[in-house]
Amino acid sequence: MQKEQLKSLFQKVADGILSPEEAVMQIKTEPFTDLGFAKPDFHRELRQGAAEVIYGEGKTAEQILKICTSLMDNGQKTVLITRLSKEAAEYIGHSIPVTYHETGRVGIAGEVPDSKHGNIVIATGGTSDMPVAEEAAVTAEALGNKVIRLYDVGVAGIHRLLSHSSEIMSARAIVAVAGMEGALASVIGGLVDCPVIAVPTSVGYGAAFGGLAALLSMLNSCAGGVSVVNIDNGFGAGYLASMINHIGGVSQ
Amino acid sequence: MQKEQLKSLFQKVADGILSPEEAVMQIKTEPFTDLGFAKPDFHRELRQGAAEVIYGEGKTAEQILKICTSLMDNGQKTVLITRLSKEAAEYIGHSIPVTYHETGRVGIAGEVPDSKHGNIVIATGGTSDMPVAEEAAVTAEALGNKVIRLYDVGVAGIHRLLSHSSEIMSARAIVAVAGMEGALASVIGGLVDCPVIAVPTSVGYGAAFGGLAALLSMLNSCAGGVSVVNIDNGFGAGYLASMINHIGGVSQ
Amino acid sequence: MQKEQLKSLFQKVADGILSPEEAVMQIKTEPFTDLGFAKPDFHRELRQGAAEVIYGEGKTAEQILKICTSLMDNGQKTVLITRLSKEAAEYIGHSIPVTYHETGRVGIAGEVPDSKHGNIVIATGGTSDMPVAEEAAVTAEALGNKVIRLYDVGVAGIHRLLSHSSEIMSARAIVAVAGMEGALASVIGGLVDCPVIAVPTSVGYGAAFGGLAALLSMLNSCAGGVSVVNIDNGFGAGYLASMINHIGGVSQ
Amino acid sequence: MQKEQLKSLFQKVADGILSPEEAVMQIKTEPFTDLGFAKPDFHRELRQGAAEVIYGEGKTAEQILKICTSLMDNGQKTVLITRLSKEAAEYIGHSIPVTYHETGRVGIAGEVPDSKHGNIVIATGGTSDMPVAEEAAVTAEALGNKVIRLYDVGVAGIHRLLSHSSEIMSARAIVAVAGMEGALASVIGGLVDCPVIAVPTSVGYGAAFGGLAALLSMLNSCAGGVSVVNIDNGFGAGYLASMINHIGGVSQ
Amino acid sequence: MQKEQLKSLFQKVADGILSPEEAVMQIKTEPFTDLGFAKPDFHRELRQGAAEVIYGEGKTAEQILKICTSLMDNGQKTVLITRLSKEAAEYIGHSIPVTYHETGRVGIAGEVPDSKHGNIVIATGGTSDMPVAEEAAVTAEALGNKVIRLYDVGVAGIHRLLSHSSEIMSARAIVAVAGMEGALASVIGGLVDCPVIAVPTSVGYGAAFGGLAALLSMLNSCAGGVSVVNIDNGFGAGYLASMINHIGGVSQ
Amino acid sequence: MQKEQLKSLFQKVADGILSPEEAVMQIKTEPFTDLGFAKPDFHRELRQGAAEVIYGEGKTAEQILKICTSLMDNGQKTVLITRLSKEAAEYIGHSIPVTYHETGRVGIAGEVPDSKHGNIVIATGGTSDMPVAEEAAVTAEALGNKVIRLYDVGVAGIHRLLSHSSEIMSARAIVAVAGMEGALASVIGGLVDCPVIAVPTSVGYGAAFGGLAALLSMLNSCAGGVSVVNIDNGFGAGYLASMINHIGGVSQ
Amino acid sequence: MQKEQLKSLFQKVADGILSPEEAVMQIKTEPFTDLGFAKPDFHRELRQGAAEVIYGEGKTAEQILKICTSLMDNGQKTVLITRLSKEAAEYIGHSIPVTYHETGRVGIAGEVPDSKHGNIVIATGGTSDMPVAEEAAVTAEALGNKVIRLYDVGVAGIHRLLSHSSEIMSARAIVAVAGMEGALASVIGGLVDCPVIAVPTSVGYGAAFGGLAALLSMLNSCAGGVSVVNIDNGFGAGYLASMINHIGGVSQ
Amino acid sequence: MQKEQLKSLFQKVADGILSPEEAVMQIKTEPFTDLGFAKPDFHRELRQGAAEVIYGEGKTAEQILKICTSLMDNGQKTVLITRLSKEAAEYIGHSIPVTYHETGRVGIAGEVPDSKHGNIVIATGGTSDMPVAEEAAVTAEALGNKVIRLYDVGVAGIHRLLSHSSEIMSARAIVAVAGMEGALASVIGGLVDCPVIAVPTSVGYGAAFGGLAALLSMLNSCAGGVSVVNIDNGFGAGYLASMINHIGGVSQ
Repeated sequence: MQKEQLKSLFQKVADGILSPEEAVMQIKTEPFTDLGFAKPDFHRELRQGAAEVIYGEGKTAEQILKICTSLMDNGQKTVLITRLSKEAAEYIGHSIPVTYHETGRVGIAGEVPDSKHGNIVIATGGTSDMPVAEEAAVTAEALGNKVIRLYDVGVAGIHRLLSHSSEIMSARAIVAVAGMEGALASVIGGLVDCPVIAVPTSVGYGAAFGGLAALLSMLNSCAGGVSVVNIDNGFGAGYLASMINHIGGVSQ
Repeated sequence: MQKEQLKSLFQKVADGILSPEEAVMQIKTEPFTDLGFAKPDFHRELRQGAAEVIYGEGKTAEQILKICTSLMDNGQKTVLITRLSKEAAEYIGHSIPVTYHETGRVGIAGEVPDSKHGNIVIATGGTSDMPVAEEAAVTAEALGNKVIRLYDVGVAGIHRLLSHSSEIMSARAIVAVAGMEGALASVIGGLVDCPVIAVPTSVGYGAAFGGLAALLSMLNSCAGGVSVVNIDNGFGAGYLASMINHIGGVSQ
Repeated sequence: MQKEQLKSLFQKVADGILSPEEAVMQIKTEPFTDLGFAKPDFHRELRQGAAEVIYGEGKTAEQILKICTSLMDNGQKTVLITRLSKEAAEYIGHSIPVTYHETGRVGIAGEVPDSKHGNIVIATGGTSDMPVAEEAAVTAEALGNKVIRLYDVGVAGIHRLLSHSSEIMSARAIVAVAGMEGALASVIGGLVDCPVIAVPTSVGYGAAFGGLAALLSMLNSCAGGVSVVNIDNGFGAGYLASMINHIGGVSQ
Repeated sequence: MQKEQLKSLFQKVADGILSPEEAVMQIKTEPFTDLGFAKPDFHRELRQGAAEVIYGEGKTAEQILKICTSLMDNGQKTVLITRLSKEAAEYIGHSIPVTYHETGRVGIAGEVPDSKHGNIVIATGGTSDMPVAEEAAVTAEALGNKVIRLYDVGVAGIHRLLSHSSEIMSARAIVAVAGMEGALASVIGGLVDCPVIAVPTSVGYGAAFGGLAALLSMLNSCAGGVSVVNIDNGFGAGYLASMINHIGGVSQ
Repeated sequence: MQKEQLKSLFQKVADGILSPEEAVMQIKTEPFTDLGFAKPDFHRELRQGAAEVIYGEGKTAEQILKICTSLMDNGQKTVLITRLSKEAAEYIGHSIPVTYHETGRVGIAGEVPDSKHGNIVIATGGTSDMPVAEEAAVTAEALGNKVIRLYDVGVAGIHRLLSHSSEIMSARAIVAVAGMEGALASVIGGLVDCPVIAVPTSVGYGAAFGGLAALLSMLNSCAGGVSVVNIDNGFGAGYLASMINHIGGVSQ
Repeated sequence: MQKEQLKSLFQKVADGILSPEEAVMQIKTEPFTDLGFAKPDFHRELRQGAAEVIYGEGKTAEQILKICTSLMDNGQKTVLITRLSKEAAEYIGHSIPVTYHETGRVGIAGEVPDSKHGNIVIATGGTSDMPVAEEAAVTAEALGNKVIRLYDVGVAGIHRLLSHSSEIMSARAIVAVAGMEGALASVIGGLVDCPVIAVPTSVGYGAAFGGLAALLSMLNSCAGGVSVVNIDNGFGAGYLASMINHIGGVSQ
Repeated sequence: MQKEQLKSLFQKVADGILSPEEAVMQIKTEPFTDLGFAKPDFHRELRQGAAEVIYGEGKTAEQILKICTSLMDNGQKTVLITRLSKEAAEYIGHSIPVTYHETGRVGIAGEVPDSKHGNIVIATGGTSDMPVAEEAAVTAEALGNKVIRLYDVGVAGIHRLLSHSSEIMSARAIVAVAGMEGALASVIGGLVDCPVIAVPTSVGYGAAFGGLAALLSMLNSCAGGVSVVNIDNGFGAGYLASMINHIGGVSQ
Repeated sequence: MQKEQLKSLFQKVADGILSPEEAVMQIKTEPFTDLGFAKPDFHRELRQGAAEVIYGEGKTAEQILKICTSLMDNGQKTVLITRLSKEAAEYIGHSIPVTYHETGRVGIAGEVPDSKHGNIVIATGGTSDMPVAEEAAVTAEALGNKVIRLYDVGVAGIHRLLSHSSEIMSARAIVAVAGMEGALASVIGGLVDCPVIAVPTSVGYGAAFGGLAALLSMLNSCAGGVSVVNIDNGFGAGYLASMINHIGGVSQ
């Protein structure tokens, strides 16, 4: 309920088009429906510039389908579903069109948008970080961004990273995905002049403590322009990278 | 040493302008000087689009002045000095012009640039978060950004935040500074469609654990577009906000 | 053994009704029985105003049934069983009447009491918090309270919460159930003038650390009237909310 | 801005008393003032049933006086100031009447209200827990509650606690303040049928970890009706105890 | 190799009974055998006054049997095996006599010694702590101690504990086994004048953090005479209780 | 109030010596006095076999003197005061005789008892652990035990420890005091057949984390008979060692 | 791309053998191939003196085989594969020769090199530490080192360790593998004058916290020459021990 | 007491040169003296190849002087004193010759040995890591090693590090000193083929948690040949680097 809408509502009351009671009712009619177990938000696209995303973890395939259908019935063309199992993707696919990306465990229900916004680079320290990186990559692509993948370019073999310096220099935002010591974010952050979104992963063992080592390392990065999202939060990184990329507009 | 420079270097060798030995020498001549205790980096502006910043903590006033002078002698017009004590600022001020911001403990040596880039909003949960917020604000201003300050708008009185919704909606990037439970970042993140840079602060006591509670809270934000920097890292947030803001260009 | 009972016991000795030895014996006869693996407490209702509750986790269906029967044979009409598996509920149901609530994993053996005490609101941040919320809700209902459920009203879409402000305002106690960043408790705490019982849940991943992030966030709430129970402790919250609600008496 | 007020506002527009523009303006006029460093909230009493409280830590005596004056000028009769140093209390006392409680570091500016609401018991494990307990006690008294203090009744000498069972039984809410192992809350929780608000304190050394041991102990209490506030948060406990006590009305 | 043995060895060399080379050899002949995967210690009984104990976790039934046989072949009459699965116990039982205690997962190979040493009390907070308590109890019994079991006497119903005060007063050492908040150790420690060995258990959930809450609570006990062993270390507690009990001699 | 006393009380009522009311009164008359800030316990010696000990930390010299006087007026001959500053010791010494041990910061008010009970060995890993060791040693001596000190015998020079094996073998209880990696407790525990009380100290830096490393190391000791008290808790270790030593009687 | 290679490249350009464009191309041709999911590094042997090692965890047998083949096709004779399951080893063994060590879960593809470098001792505290120790041992052997294994020589029976003092004294580097309290590293470090590489293991339970106790203990070792690798990182220890051993050359 | 010495001792007994009693006495005469507060170890040089080092922290100047004198009186030519304050250095300097290094807070009493062993490189991430690096450097120099210092070469400006690749390639051991995210160790470890000793420092703030972030980062290094010492343990790193360097012999 923004200022302009509120003002227009008052105007309608002043003009006698609405009674005060009707106006109150309208203010309280929220742009979501209540499915009992969830309250899908139909206006998020208006309010936040991006479609509602369903976090699939801990929801049944039936629940996901219901939320999805409810959103699409209310006019949303694309629904992103993260942490989606292959089985649930197949179940939903019987009712509505779903493009499923297995490594990143992401499904795109409905239309797959064009990738027309300037480059986002997504880099990983190792092979094992790929599922998180793919969650970020598919999220960014589903939100209309061009994505360049640079996987297995960790700091133990820094020449592998440096050999891709032109791709890195071309990016408007870089997502650095790494577990273990998480140094990738700092090294990239020291090379570029665009925002670096660091994603610690739970890859590693022992004193990696499920991603804590990489998380702390990234939070303490001595390079400028580095910020951090939750451990394994590929979606969050892809979503934020898209937001930043969109500020610069469509082509590049 | 980017690709183009390297190619041009080879060309000069091929043209007989440089001997191979001279070329090697040139490659190894790094764009920094060695002061013994520090190695100021003169090309960071080229490489990263922003001037070198001096982290004042743990450096003597003499050391800061030397680094500052070394940078300005090499052509840098503005040097940002964070975590700068009032005494050190005064000491440096005798030799070079310094604008000192006491609350945020930030000094700007040399020219203060114009603020011409679109809005950055910096919000705090409480009064005690102001020093961190000011570090972010002065950093962003020194890098050429317009800054709107919204202080003491924490979630315990959410109407104070909501009354500023038009400022919030106008931002290209928002810095949310909060200690204690750090919920401010999530609440703002749920309202806007621009990147939110969350800065946990060490404000609080007991189970705040020096900012850990706010840090974890912000990392787990269920709102999209939120990323996190280190506890009390106002500089990092201001620097990143500026980077994002510059993607959108000068006016708005 | 309260003061009055002790005094009456002395009186009986003084009156010659009991010998000193018999009095000692009576004092040491405790109001519980010893099943070997457990010592059900028959007087808790007297002492604490609420029936004994069985924590089902780690107990076999046989053990639960024995404790249950022992309590009911000693006059207790309603026995609440938390963390009760469906299988155990069925096993017990063959011997004594049990109402089983699957989402919250709560069973009510014996009579289900009327809900006649003023409102308790139970709100959750997301869909995944429902099992904990239902444990709280069924507990509160079993103790005679009217319960209003507000699920999936997390802070990332704060208008969903605000649209229920009349229900929230009507409550004598509110249970705020949330995982991830746990900001729900603070936001509700800032809106109302009744006690808010915050329940962190283990919902989330990575830096949620099994509910630690939500726990710390809730403990640091800057809103007044908020207190916290253990992670996932829906029962504890429902029990406490009932206690508070009963202070205000039956109707409202 | 509650429902009734909003409806009345619409009515005024419908009646032509206000123009739509004026209505919007009025909605946006928030019930607080902006002192630059703080935004005192004049309507909290209406919204939350208790006066604004100033958290004195990290604020200068001048700032506290300004906020205090601003609140009292807007009609608030009593202002509670916690974490108030003796020096700041004296400074403020020159301008407005302040009753200062040194052990709990609490100041009451303006009228000291009558204590007319039913009993709150505040118990401590040891002598060193007294400052936190006094913060709770003075807060509760300033909010109109009768308070019974039971200090140094820790579990290592449980008969000291049991000797006060009649006071404990008379309470509508009990605040259990303890550091070290924090067992006091569980022991009291096992004896009574009213809410127990547990306050871990930072008293102790070594593996007390600044109150963490007591905090975890209290969160894991196996007794019903126990909830926990932040380490050393005497104010929060006193405030919540008052809220609960007020539900039961004035006398007892 | 103690002083007396060394002196006697030198005497034999001085007397010409042993050559220096033979003496060196004898010193280096260690009182253990090398099974490749383990080095059973045959002299521990001499050195430490108690037989070798096999920690069964992570060893195959075959390995346990081999170590057991090796020890018994070298004259040990009783071998205690902790963390022994029922299957492994059965496997071993085919070759040597084994008494298996299922709840505590302890096996006694060979002779079961008489229980003739003065009382050890083993108390638990709840039913779920029984496996750990039984590990302690069977260990103590296997080492010749009389054991009194007091299970489910946690502090939430303190009268259950107090009703057993005569047993508690009769003990030379008490093992207090409790998870969750672990307050049992403090309460017992405040009642008695004998050593209390506190065993935190991993019973609980959420902020119990696998026994950490109970561990910290017990380490911070304000009662005298309380010391702590590792989480779930029933064996260690039973072994230490036996050591203490033996200081007092056989009968009581 | 033990069984015998209770029975005798009932007998007096039965004999008409006491009225029921007087009996109740007597039961409620607790064996402590209330100084306002503390409740000294006069019967602890009866109940626990050792005199009341005053924990000096956080108490003023005046408070300590008052508690001390109150205890001695009620017949206690020796009062142990731990964590006592030199200044406070001098202040108290003006009123009552105090023997002060500066390294361990322990004062003994009143009579210093004879040391007649069998040996307690107190060993430290390094020189810096001496204050904690002295707190243990003086405590044990004040409770009538013979104490052997073995300081600076840490595992980095294990021959220093082995050269004292006869002293170690002579002990009924050993207190092992060590910071840093805390291995001393395990090494001693592997050599002896008496209880080892491990005291982690806060000596060390970095990953010693204020004694946490030593604490965890000691809790995980693979040697039998080792239990642990709080970090720096010399008093607790000395008190427990004395308890164990007393079980074996006076001489040795 | 080292200095000499760069100089020679320039010389070729100066001599007209390479055009500048070709030189740039050559610099950017990195010594690795891109398999999509991994980028095997063919020059690591040159750069680091040891062949590429494949960390098998989280890679499919197919992926491991592809990387392996790629490396061997590029001239590497021996490829070490750690954390390799038996099934994967068999799968790979169908295509290329693999020697599989089951306890340490290490495979050696291709030639098994001779062990000709001076002694490395690998010691463990207990039987359960063997898998980690074997990972270290096989790694070291695959890199050409002689390895002496001393298993189950933990500090609880220190004579078992001391009986092997001649082997220990003969080593150029010692790997000390231990879980629980991790004291083995300190004890060995106090005996020898060569580097000790400490490997904490996740063996243990309760307050072992998955190897944290051993890790902290080892980091705080008061013995000189001790450094630490990650929990369970047998490979890292074996690799580092080999590096150190190679400094001393082939025979001894 | 090594094997050879023992054998020779037996021979002397066999030859009648020593009586058995005298031999026992000699074995028990330990190569240290007992100063009461410390037991300096005169044979460490024999046993460990390096002189005794005094850890100055927490020792008085008088104590340090006494230990120093005791060691030098027993033939040690050089004594290293770490964590030595300037004041203590001056105090000691009045009695014996001391070379004091202020940044690293290290004193060398007696002769300063020649630096003749092959190169050790000591690198730091930033200027603030210098004190720890100097502690390592002076330690290594005092033990006879050539040291190359590379300070302020952190990963945020990786070209500063790469410009020193020839020095780095020349080293036999590298000490990487860094706080904050500690990535320096991984980056260096990926470049070289010699052991890298990583020293986390407590430099940083917020989520650096006193060096924990750097510590975890370094423990999880994905580069081979990296091991870690305690936070701020410059001495330990310098000592270990020297040990490794000495394996390679004197010149290079």
